[in-house]
Amino acid sequence: MNILFIMYDQLRHDYLSCAGHPHLKTPNFDLVAAMGVRFTNAYVQSPICGASRMSFYTGRYTSSHGAQWNGFPLRVGELTLGDHLRKIGMDCWLLGKTHMKADAEGMARLGLSPDSVIGARQSECGFDAWVRDDGLWAEGPDGFYDEKRSPYNEYLKSQGYPGDNPWADFANAGIEDGQIASGWILKNAAKPANIREEDSETPWLTSQTLDFMEQARTPWCAHVSYIKPHWPYIVPAPYHDMFGPNHVPAARRAEVEREDAHPVLSAYMETRVAEAFQQDAVRQKVIPAYMALIKQCDDQLGRILDHLERTGALSDTMIVLTSDHGDYLGDHWMGEKDMFHEQAVKIPLIVYDPRDAADATRGTTCDALVEAIDLTATFIEAAGGEVPDHIVEGRSLLPWLHGEVPEDWRQVAISEYDYSGTGQAVKLGLSPRDARLFMVFDGRFKLIHAEGGFRPMLFDLETDPEEFHDLAKDDNHQAEIDRLYDHLARWGRRMSQRVTKSDAEIIAGRGKSLRRGILTFLADGTEVPPEWMEKYVGPAKADYTGD
Amino acid sequence: MNILFIMYDQLRHDYLSCAGHPHLKTPNFDLVAAMGVRFTNAYVQSPICGASRMSFYTGRYTSSHGAQWNGFPLRVGELTLGDHLRKIGMDCWLLGKTHMKADAEGMARLGLSPDSVIGARQSECGFDAWVRDDGLWAEGPDGFYDEKRSPYNEYLKSQGYPGDNPWADFANAGIEDGQIASGWILKNAAKPANIREEDSETPWLTSQTLDFMEQARTPWCAHVSYIKPHWPYIVPAPYHDMFGPNHVPAARRAEVEREDAHPVLSAYMETRVAEAFQQDAVRQKVIPAYMALIKQCDDQLGRILDHLERTGALSDTMIVLTSDHGDYLGDHWMGEKDMFHEQAVKIPLIVYDPRDAADATRGTTCDALVEAIDLTATFIEAAGGEVPDHIVEGRSLLPWLHGEVPEDWRQVAISEYDYSGTGQAVKLGLSPRDARLFMVFDGRFKLIHAEGGFRPMLFDLETDPEEFHDLAKDDNHQAEIDRLYDHLARWGRRMSQRVTKSDAEIIAGRGKSLRRGILTFLADGTEVPPEWMEKYVGPAKADYTGD
Repeated sequence: MNILFIMYDQLRHDYLSCAGHPHLKTPNFDLVAAMGVRFTNAYVQSPICGASRMSFYTGRYTSSHGAQWNGFPLRVGELTLGDHLRKIGMDCWLLGKTHMKADAEGMARLGLSPDSVIGARQSECGFDAWVRDDGLWAEGPDGFYDEKRSPYNEYLKSQGYPGDNPWADFANAGIEDGQIASGWILKNAAKPANIREEDSETPWLTSQTLDFMEQARTPWCAHVSYIKPHWPYIVPAPYHDMFGPNHVPAARRAEVEREDAHPVLSAYMETRVAEAFQQDAVRQKVIPAYMALIKQCDDQLGRILDHLERTGALSDTMIVLTSDHGDYLGDHWMGEKDMFHEQAVKIPLIVYDPRDAADATRGTTCDALVEAIDLTATFIEAAGGEVPDHIVEGRSLLPWLHGEVPEDWRQVAISEYDYSGTGQAVKLGLSPRDARLFMVFDGRFKLIHAEGGFRPMLFDLETDPEEFHDLAKDDNHQAEIDRLYDHLARWGRRMSQRVTKSDAEIIAGRGKSLRRGILTFLADGTEVPPEWMEKYVGPAKADYTGD
Repeated sequence: MNILFIMYDQLRHDYLSCAGHPHLKTPNFDLVAAMGVRFTNAYVQSPICGASRMSFYTGRYTSSHGAQWNGFPLRVGELTLGDHLRKIGMDCWLLGKTHMKADAEGMARLGLSPDSVIGARQSECGFDAWVRDDGLWAEGPDGFYDEKRSPYNEYLKSQGYPGDNPWADFANAGIEDGQIASGWILKNAAKPANIREEDSETPWLTSQTLDFMEQARTPWCAHVSYIKPHWPYIVPAPYHDMFGPNHVPAARRAEVEREDAHPVLSAYMETRVAEAFQQDAVRQKVIPAYMALIKQCDDQLGRILDHLERTGALSDTMIVLTSDHGDYLGDHWMGEKDMFHEQAVKIPLIVYDPRDAADATRGTTCDALVEAIDLTATFIEAAGGEVPDHIVEGRSLLPWLHGEVPEDWRQVAISEYDYSGTGQAVKLGLSPRDARLFMVFDGRFKLIHAEGGFRPMLFDLETDPEEFHDLAKDDNHQAEIDRLYDHLARWGRRMSQRVTKSDAEIIAGRGKSLRRGILTFLADGTEVPPEWMEKYVGPAKADYTGD
């Protein structure tokens, strides 16, 4: 069996028709959901691209792998999905984005060249890169945001698009009065991107994927990782005018959210992005473009499904559809992601397992508390391996896919956010290590702990599914707060770094030192089997004390 | 300035005359204490050799570096004292024991050969090995406990000691009726070891140290790490009869300790070693040998001090004397170490800083809560570096040495113990990750949390300095317990794995993406400086949408 692990960037959990979106029809997502299981309570380990992805790719919490924000390098030697899969005979390929920054200093210290196979995998988050393109070819006076080469830009140039950065000038810009109309500017969101649709980012990566599937040696795991529907929000014809202001739901927000708001949330509600999304005019421009980008993703998913069906591979390929986090789109007075409301921290997660064992669950949903880190465990098990649970902190989802209810499933989902690198930390006057948040969610109550001496936040999603009422504003919920803090404390004591020794090795090693001669405090030696003592008895070989 | 970092193995904090021992005179330890500062509340991060040492050598808690018990490999790439010192121009040498196990699997995965300089340092815990000898050449039917070569055994052979393992047959055995009388057997503890005193382990390593100091390029840090006074407890003449039963203090233990004892402590009180030390006959044989081994250490320390004085290096060498943990010696019904009473978890720590800045504190004691991990930070600062506090969790002791009281010094010391590999975990029916203990000590109250569903332990060292009364046996101390659990929870959330990005780098990086073209959600572009937008404006280069 192969594994097709497809990630979209910033795809909000409820922007699919199978998840109930009233206007956006996503028949191909829905088809996979009908063939598999849709997980309705799936959470990322951090509501930000880089940190979230490092958790997907290592199966470990962000506090465990340490790459807690965009651009924080993943430490050299940290074990990844690719390490685990190759060990059991499955190749592990990357097509698209990882947002992984290599630990160049650590690699130099260990003498690893990025040109070697080992060094290249260390640089690419454990994947073999079929094509890596992180998809943000932003450029300013200090140069490119991303200093790598862009295969996508090279593709565009090969197709005749002029200039140094056709990503910016064509794929993410329209035209107005003969001038570039950049996708960074909101008022351009409804314009068609100045690019042939088949050359835009999502179809380009899809074509790479079809090429890959034709050429790759099996079994493979392929991480197909689209940059879209992530901003800049602009989309080529014919998608640009598929949706309009009448398809934009009212913002889910309430005045009470801004009253006595938690200082960290308050700082986030005051960012430029949040203030943009607080304007209905912005939402009405941007959300149709966002929807159109998703619609294009759905159409391109259709190409992949067609290819799998045509080649007969559909019966032998596990398919996973997910995202690295959501998008507030103006809900809760917020833009982007970064915080822990469902809009940001919950993700779509659809898993199709082609094997007979999964027949009973096809087309169902599963509301178990699932974490992004569970996918690494799932893939290792799907590939026939045993999950090394002293390294991988997630748990395999296969039991759920096969209609079983695993014992001792987690009681809480944990997510973290390190905002030390942001203007909000500056605004709040926080040292880097005080600019950290932890979410503990038990399926009903959601506690958010903030370092730095702030009070927590608490939401009850049963009585307040919209998460408007922060119950920690008053003193009436201490019992729930304490209970969730207990979960957080237990999690804080978890065994996460004993990565060089498995539980099985520990159990097998118990008592072994006795048979290697460590025989402390024997009264006369008769209390142990004679062969244990054999090396310590016999005639004295010489007498040196008298010298 | 050079740094002479001397560690003794299993040297209990109160077995020095400067620490008040009534019978054991240790003039050379006392001399260093008179020249420097003796820390009277210094704690190890784990009361077991390997885990404790990995914390000394990384400056990190055992849950952070992951090598939580003897023989658990230190993960490849984990930064060590040697890495930090070499970066700032100081060599870092090892003479003696580290108890470090290399991460052979991780090294193979990264293509590191132990024969290379980089690989050798990875294998030797970041040190350049002048001579490594872990000092436990135990041997049984399954072979040697330690599979490396023993430079000490090679030395003995070169001196004419016959046989394969003169460590066992001579250095750690006497003679009785022409037969080997092994040091593993208690009744032999008072016999002279069958070896010339100058060939025994402590003088041998001291001679290596003198050779090193004559030859090494400065500046150096040298970790001189003796195996003694660790068992087997047997010592050559003339030390073997320096002490007798009349020098052995009564065991510090009380019946109340065994009443309703905590299950984990109870399991440890029932080990073979504990039961041996519960017998006064055993204590009276063993403790005189233990004292004699310390006396020999003191004499050999005198050789080092003489050499430093003779060569004029005393004014340019920082000296640190410490141990990796203590020894119960029958107190609390216990033998060995493993638990968190002061006898096991507190260590001797004497630091001599030759510089003028330390003149004011010479000959004083300091009762601040100090942890073993503080030494890495101290050495980095002493060598002129800045402590990378995103990696090193300890704090420099230099302020204390220079008569300053650091702001925000830690409020609690933390120590951990992973006993997953022991018979006690088997006895208690625990899975490996439930066989873990955490100590939180605030200078007065000591809480011990046990995973696996057990109650905690609590001692009040003010009202009960002997730690006989576990206050958690009843329900009257919940406030103290909760308070210490809060400290533990805060510690559990510490930032310990963001080792690739310093606080300074984070602060310097804030806002940098704007000047690299990440310009989200502009209304019309006028809200940012024109040069930020420069790459996104201008005449459209072509029109592709109409194709």
